[in-house]
Amino acid sequence: MSAQARVPRYLERLTPVPEALRAIRAAVKPVDGKERLPVWEAVGRVVAEPVAAEYDFPPRPRAAYDGYAVRSADTPGRLRLVGEATIGKVDVGVRVEPGTAVYVSTGAYLPEGADTVVPEEVVKVEDGYIVVDREFQPGKNIDPVGSYVRRGQVLLEPGRVLTELDVVGLLEVAVTEVTVYRSVNVAIIATGTELFEPRDPREARERILRGEVAETTAKLVESLVRRYAPWSRVVWRVLLPDDVDAIAWYLTRQTQGVDVVVLTGGTGPSDVDPFYQLAGKLGGRVLFRGLFVKGGRPTSAMVLPGGPLVVALSGHPVSALHGFLRLLYPVLKHLGNVTRAAEPPLQAVARLTAPVRSKRPQPVKVRLRVARDGMLEAEPLPYERQLSSVTVSNVEADGIAVMREARVYDEGELVPVHVYREPEGAGD
Amino acid sequence: MSAQARVPRYLERLTPVPEALRAIRAAVKPVDGKERLPVWEAVGRVVAEPVAAEYDFPPRPRAAYDGYAVRSADTPGRLRLVGEATIGKVDVGVRVEPGTAVYVSTGAYLPEGADTVVPEEVVKVEDGYIVVDREFQPGKNIDPVGSYVRRGQVLLEPGRVLTELDVVGLLEVAVTEVTVYRSVNVAIIATGTELFEPRDPREARERILRGEVAETTAKLVESLVRRYAPWSRVVWRVLLPDDVDAIAWYLTRQTQGVDVVVLTGGTGPSDVDPFYQLAGKLGGRVLFRGLFVKGGRPTSAMVLPGGPLVVALSGHPVSALHGFLRLLYPVLKHLGNVTRAAEPPLQAVARLTAPVRSKRPQPVKVRLRVARDGMLEAEPLPYERQLSSVTVSNVEADGIAVMREARVYDEGELVPVHVYREPEGAGD
Repeated sequence: MSAQARVPRYLERLTPVPEALRAIRAAVKPVDGKERLPVWEAVGRVVAEPVAAEYDFPPRPRAAYDGYAVRSADTPGRLRLVGEATIGKVDVGVRVEPGTAVYVSTGAYLPEGADTVVPEEVVKVEDGYIVVDREFQPGKNIDPVGSYVRRGQVLLEPGRVLTELDVVGLLEVAVTEVTVYRSVNVAIIATGTELFEPRDPREARERILRGEVAETTAKLVESLVRRYAPWSRVVWRVLLPDDVDAIAWYLTRQTQGVDVVVLTGGTGPSDVDPFYQLAGKLGGRVLFRGLFVKGGRPTSAMVLPGGPLVVALSGHPVSALHGFLRLLYPVLKHLGNVTRAAEPPLQAVARLTAPVRSKRPQPVKVRLRVARDGMLEAEPLPYERQLSSVTVSNVEADGIAVMREARVYDEGELVPVHVYREPEGAGD
Repeated sequence: MSAQARVPRYLERLTPVPEALRAIRAAVKPVDGKERLPVWEAVGRVVAEPVAAEYDFPPRPRAAYDGYAVRSADTPGRLRLVGEATIGKVDVGVRVEPGTAVYVSTGAYLPEGADTVVPEEVVKVEDGYIVVDREFQPGKNIDPVGSYVRRGQVLLEPGRVLTELDVVGLLEVAVTEVTVYRSVNVAIIATGTELFEPRDPREARERILRGEVAETTAKLVESLVRRYAPWSRVVWRVLLPDDVDAIAWYLTRQTQGVDVVVLTGGTGPSDVDPFYQLAGKLGGRVLFRGLFVKGGRPTSAMVLPGGPLVVALSGHPVSALHGFLRLLYPVLKHLGNVTRAAEPPLQAVARLTAPVRSKRPQPVKVRLRVARDGMLEAEPLPYERQLSSVTVSNVEADGIAVMREARVYDEGELVPVHVYREPEGAGD
């Protein structure tokens, strides 16, 4: 228990989140490698060059409704049915001459000669003829050339994360390739001599009762990264004891191509601060050591010489989740050049059903329900179930409300929530 | 174009969503197979039997803070440091005798003899001794036996989908196994003679310009099922032409063990309604044909004799997404015995920035931003960009607001939103 004067004391100065983020953004550059991919392989990746339409689309007029392509001058009238033009064929092979009609399905290119589409519900079909009982103006039920998008029109700006629905939209207008940034490579080290990787339920039960701890925090972080930061790739995850030499070996010898190493646990106090020990051993530059938050206080970051950024998160699962939401997620956005991500981890906003006193920014375990007005309501768990050491209370909660400020939040205030369970009363 | 009198007309009666759901719930039973799994392999699965704590936890008193385990009767005082008890060891191997102290880290079992923990910040350490300058009551900074959970206490009720955070909570208290329902087996058939599976960007571009359509709807449905209904397993997905015989062959010969087959596309009007043709061919019982909604009107369902439920969704991506949100997702919950799912697809609630006139329940493409009060705001895209045929407008939107009712929604009303892009102004 001897004190070492050479290294700063554990968490002697807590850094506010915005300052911590500024320090990382100033110290570490985003990835700059780019690659060109088929759009259907680029979901979750970050657009690196503006994605523009290459053609007016549709390139020819298309039917916007199921019905009959005719000449407007022939309406009203009785018209001979001469064929059909279904979606999937540009070369319709049939022309609409005066007095004739061609069946068209929505999205089919309009046959030559036609200038309007009569919806099928309003015609009578009789023996190879259709009867149109009113006049149709030219252009009715037709999507003209370029009506969806004009050639050169920018569809996605750099920094956007490509979503499934973006892919749908791009493929409609024949944009089949995009230039994206390379993935951000993430490695995860769970540290803690008390940890074990559970493999057999009976053995795991006995070890937990003996006082060992099943590793879940690093796995949680991995799943958060995969789900919410798909422009990142978790290249490896490993479990290590609280052994500064072993961790240092990993950080120097196993991090080729890795952009950020996430450490979970092992960040707590001890006689010699292991984070500063690591920094000293490896010549790392500590950006901050300790966050001004309540859950995730040991969150820290350093840059290794010529190597990756190292972000240390708490070993407590909900504190690590808070560290992910407040720090790691924005850092991954920065590293990945992301300006607009896909589905975010803090998607919902909820109304507090009780006041919350936040001496520091903090996560609050909440029960969630849909109120009568359709709004989401967040009811904080009682104080004694909030403690980061009591992780079993996660099963009582449905989400984590994030208090970004150190102040009293009133009942009825709106707060962002990470939802991990469907709110009560969500209905169909 | 001849009409067949024997089958009902295409979408001659549209069924409201609640009625459609009732019909399916009445016709198809949830899965009843169960299996016992290690909790770490059960994320996303549905709890089938109450999960109860098997032990009081902690089973022995634990330190709730990093500091020194001492006898309260010895405080204040100068105490000899005789060892440490770190987390991970139940057999501490050291006893706190009068006049001594043992260093403990948070979560460590308390050494015999001690009845209070003095936080390390408030002691002076000098040469093998600690100095405690005030009195500490018994039980201070200690989690007593059973304080997290009592033996027999139910932690998760049947019907809950197990989340990552539930696993964290269960493993803390030595619950290492759960009984879950078997997965719901889902097969997906994309139908449409105009469709192709894109493989090469250049070839795909040419085919799209020729009028063919890259298949994206079934892939979107697959990714929605995987993401939001993890208690389901997509066992296969296949692309077929609009050929009733080929679809029928798949439905009868390739559906062993499949609980629900999702058809996308091929549900639109034609001279003979293909859905009724299929039902007639296979002896299927049509539950409803056509939903009373604006996007996804052709959504339909039938039950095959002795076989799976068949749910047909629109071929338009956003309409299929709407069909997923309103119909398929609740159906998968029903089939899977789910009462509380995990992260839901309609998680966020947003305030409309403009009125929306919904003649039928419908999806509305919206831009999303975080307003100054922290609330999510949804701005509907202009009417002409809403049309289901204009899928390129997905790149302009950030989410899909769901209007569950046929009425005018006022500016400022709250609506549920499927968020697929991070809202503007979400900040850190």
